[in-house]
Amino acid sequence: MPSRLTPHHDGSPLHVSTQTPALGEVVRVRLRVPASFGPLTWVGTRSNPNREPQFSEASVVGSADGWQWWEAAIEVANPVHGYRWLLVGADGRQYWLNQVGLFTTETRDHDDFRLVAHEPPPEWAASSVLYQVFPDRFARSDRAEARELPEWAIPAEWSDPVDGDPPGRSQQFYGGDLDGVREHLDHLEQLGVNLLYLTPVFPARSNHRYDASTFGEVDPLLGGDDALVRLVEEAHRRGIRVIGDLTSNHSGDAHEWFKEAQADPASPERSFYYFRDEADGGGYESWLGVPSLPKFDWSSTELRRRFIEGRDSVVARYLAPPFSLDGWRIDVANMTGRLGAEDLNAEVRQTIRRTMLDVNPDTILLGESTNDAASDFQGDAWHGAMTYTPFTRPLWSWLLEPGSAGGGGIGFANAAVPSYTGSDFLEAHIRFSAGFPWRTRLATMNALDTHDTPRFRTSARPGTVPVALGLAVTLPGIPVVWAGDEFGLTGVDGEESRTPIPWGSEATPEVAPVLETYRSLLRLRRDHPVLATGGIRWLAVGDDAVAFVRESADERLLVFAARGAATLELAAETVEVTTDAAAPLFGDARLEASDGHVHLGADGASFTAWRLPGVSAPTW
Amino acid sequence: MPSRLTPHHDGSPLHVSTQTPALGEVVRVRLRVPASFGPLTWVGTRSNPNREPQFSEASVVGSADGWQWWEAAIEVANPVHGYRWLLVGADGRQYWLNQVGLFTTETRDHDDFRLVAHEPPPEWAASSVLYQVFPDRFARSDRAEARELPEWAIPAEWSDPVDGDPPGRSQQFYGGDLDGVREHLDHLEQLGVNLLYLTPVFPARSNHRYDASTFGEVDPLLGGDDALVRLVEEAHRRGIRVIGDLTSNHSGDAHEWFKEAQADPASPERSFYYFRDEADGGGYESWLGVPSLPKFDWSSTELRRRFIEGRDSVVARYLAPPFSLDGWRIDVANMTGRLGAEDLNAEVRQTIRRTMLDVNPDTILLGESTNDAASDFQGDAWHGAMTYTPFTRPLWSWLLEPGSAGGGGIGFANAAVPSYTGSDFLEAHIRFSAGFPWRTRLATMNALDTHDTPRFRTSARPGTVPVALGLAVTLPGIPVVWAGDEFGLTGVDGEESRTPIPWGSEATPEVAPVLETYRSLLRLRRDHPVLATGGIRWLAVGDDAVAFVRESADERLLVFAARGAATLELAAETVEVTTDAAAPLFGDARLEASDGHVHLGADGASFTAWRLPGVSAPTW
Repeated sequence: MPSRLTPHHDGSPLHVSTQTPALGEVVRVRLRVPASFGPLTWVGTRSNPNREPQFSEASVVGSADGWQWWEAAIEVANPVHGYRWLLVGADGRQYWLNQVGLFTTETRDHDDFRLVAHEPPPEWAASSVLYQVFPDRFARSDRAEARELPEWAIPAEWSDPVDGDPPGRSQQFYGGDLDGVREHLDHLEQLGVNLLYLTPVFPARSNHRYDASTFGEVDPLLGGDDALVRLVEEAHRRGIRVIGDLTSNHSGDAHEWFKEAQADPASPERSFYYFRDEADGGGYESWLGVPSLPKFDWSSTELRRRFIEGRDSVVARYLAPPFSLDGWRIDVANMTGRLGAEDLNAEVRQTIRRTMLDVNPDTILLGESTNDAASDFQGDAWHGAMTYTPFTRPLWSWLLEPGSAGGGGIGFANAAVPSYTGSDFLEAHIRFSAGFPWRTRLATMNALDTHDTPRFRTSARPGTVPVALGLAVTLPGIPVVWAGDEFGLTGVDGEESRTPIPWGSEATPEVAPVLETYRSLLRLRRDHPVLATGGIRWLAVGDDAVAFVRESADERLLVFAARGAATLELAAETVEVTTDAAAPLFGDARLEASDGHVHLGADGASFTAWRLPGVSAPTW
Repeated sequence: MPSRLTPHHDGSPLHVSTQTPALGEVVRVRLRVPASFGPLTWVGTRSNPNREPQFSEASVVGSADGWQWWEAAIEVANPVHGYRWLLVGADGRQYWLNQVGLFTTETRDHDDFRLVAHEPPPEWAASSVLYQVFPDRFARSDRAEARELPEWAIPAEWSDPVDGDPPGRSQQFYGGDLDGVREHLDHLEQLGVNLLYLTPVFPARSNHRYDASTFGEVDPLLGGDDALVRLVEEAHRRGIRVIGDLTSNHSGDAHEWFKEAQADPASPERSFYYFRDEADGGGYESWLGVPSLPKFDWSSTELRRRFIEGRDSVVARYLAPPFSLDGWRIDVANMTGRLGAEDLNAEVRQTIRRTMLDVNPDTILLGESTNDAASDFQGDAWHGAMTYTPFTRPLWSWLLEPGSAGGGGIGFANAAVPSYTGSDFLEAHIRFSAGFPWRTRLATMNALDTHDTPRFRTSARPGTVPVALGLAVTLPGIPVVWAGDEFGLTGVDGEESRTPIPWGSEATPEVAPVLETYRSLLRLRRDHPVLATGGIRWLAVGDDAVAFVRESADERLLVFAARGAATLELAAETVEVTTDAAAPLFGDARLEASDGHVHLGADGASFTAWRLPGVSAPTW
């Protein structure tokens, strides 16, 4: 990776005149070219309206701090309008700049920058700090004791170890509830969280509730509808938004719709699922062949009406008062509506979002798509992805101890985590980020781990938890805290990582420093809007360290992340640091400027961030 | 590029158990791993059924010539089923192999290998050698003299220079006709052509006829319906298939449909085009704003019925007797059905193909999409692309004199052709090829130039015409001869390249050797089926030369292409050449084996091909 300075563009306000263009609007886009790059005879954009290339010539609009700023105008011809930059040198050499980087050969369309004219995400999406709660394991209120458990539940004491084997795996029941969550909103507030994501809260026959038996009410075991209303009200009072979790790919086999469909082949619910003819062996389609999770058939208009379309649908019901959820995370969004030759995914996701816009446009829609999510996430519905490809898997591969197992829940083949260098990390991060429009990238989840995975800390190299969390809060995207990480919990797989939260341990010598790291880094994110919406420029990379800067006109944050002792050297012009910067905002790495170079260094694992003046850019 | 041997897979019959899988079928795929690659602890495929990753473990099925062959089974879950290989080394290192190559970081889905369960192309598609004729400029029969010219036509003598400026540009009329084509089928036969592509033959108001005034008859100026019937019959008698050219994006403004639409806003034809309200300034949408080419609105079901859907449609009419065309090339396929927020492209192309399957499934459908064509060309309709990204532009960039202009017609920005090294050529070729399923790649056009571009020869480096044509016949894809190239014609732009064919010059000292080169290289293609359907492995690349091998169980063709004096050295095992191979089938480069290495060398521009024994592979 270059410590050499190269032309730069990204989707941030420094470089694009509007974040919310309309179809047909003329948007101005800017490219920064370093003085050292050499003379150029032509600079402009290559767009692809209606899939036919169109070039727009740029002109220089100003210079500052060693950068020449070029500007071109692009008419947004399609709802997703791709573009890339073409630079022609005085020597005839042609350079293409796209979301992956600078190329001297022609590039493909899927890595283009993009202007998106679909309805924008809510303004607060990018500045969210998300906290994920698995209700059975978070906290039990006093009301929990009085509830009678259903037959399937195997009761557990809060301090019991998690049982990873069936039937305990899905039936071991700790009895956390929504009032328990409400009673701990202080904790979230102190952490700096402003978006609470609850995994499913509908009645089901498992502790994870991804096998809903109805979407008609909140599980009485969690306190029912009233408890959700109480929780959302109290959270809103504290400036914390709350989103739920919907399974659009399947229900549980105990779902009222499925039971009706099975009992009566003439019922309307029969069309909600894929029942096979007896001649084809009978049965029905289900998630990965698990019979308790029958798959929805979205060609059913009645299913759409009840579940996702219009103000009477499930999607709408919980966004409207009194529940007033602030959005949804959609489970298995990637498989939804897809089976064999049928692909209704776009229709389903767009219908969900249309309904949300109708009820309350100020809501967020996140989709789970744990692998290459880009093709579904171009801005027509999902605001961001719960995905592991751009961030989580590269992060694990770089920061976990070599030879770590336990990657199955996060999509590594054979559960083996490959070992990456810093360059590998960056290559994978950039490759998968490049598939997203900028606005999608800003609303995509940067998770160290989730309820489906081992916890990052379990196999992390010494001292790298702050490095991982530091990257989650400083790279574009929504930082995610999976409840319990801030207590230093570990877990070798997705089951063990669902350990109940050890309330009361906050002040112990083991937990206190971890909690303080979480609070500090989430505060860093909250205190510096540039981390939410600023541009990003990579500065240098080595096997053991990476450096980048987030940029806006107001401020810049220089970030150095090292997994062990490492130094990086950059030309001073790359960050315009000519004398030593002020003390870091976080971390203890060294920053020294001398001889026209900036030296970044650490004696061990380190996440360090410095604040620098904002970018001097011509006014729009 | 490696002269180091790496694991190999491609879509050819050596590596995939069927070229025409059905949905739900289990296909076996094979990976070859060189003994030198090191021990592996796990090998298998990663598929993505319904967008959820699935791994299939491979096992060793045999070894031969230094390769270990691994085989995995994949169930084709979706009509386009992507897969890539994962190899885990004994050191824990993970390798991904996709259509771009071998990676040590995770790769994106769009570069995966693909199994396609859509209706396959006709069996002869990949073994086609295509000859492109622009009827006004190819040959005039005796009947042409008697025809009365329409008012718009500016008559030209056959020997007149082409007028590149309006109005001559589109109205200069040489009067070539279809009987003229028929009378020169000997020439095509001697060349080795087996597929004749005629640019439009419908009445129009220009010499290029892309502005059709009707699709109801063949232009009487070309001899009318009967002449087309006569041409196709005679061509078929000689084993030459014939395809036509349809403009699905637009008609001419003199088209009977458009005239009716303009005259009568209440007419059914009104819905065929995009007329703007007076409030929005009136007028109508047209191709790149050219008013003589009004754009079709494919939301019109009546347009679909008349033009593309069912046995009474235009698409069907000319495939059925007595015309019996063997398929269509579709003009501006990329823009068809696309405007603003509307994208009906997939519907239109799939409807066209459905109609063709109904009339005569043994027909080919090619789509013009001159840039990154991949996303539309996954096998649901188009069999192959008339595109310039994987072959033509990289070829020009490598083989043209540095600083050549005239690239506008072929999509270079500012018409300036960038200068590529051999590595650049290969990088761009592979990048754009990787977007296609194997079967699409085999039916995609390898053109040096077309009626829209300058002729390659015009600015070619000395001696590189055989290199370019040699690559067109030996790389996967359909080799294309744009009529006149075999006469050594030149042309600085798409107008000048439409020079009338200089019949009678075949035996002149200027033309005879060119013609002989064309005949020899097209014969090479026809004589060696491995060039149509065999696999491809790149062996080495330098600034001035590339080497690869096409492979089947029957034979291998080793190809060395150099733009000037160059040598390449490869480990002997890469092509299993241990003693000097027999004399080349074409060309005069050196092949010497010594010290465990193979040396390929030439003293100047050279295209050379050698025949080697077929690949020893385990039987299926």
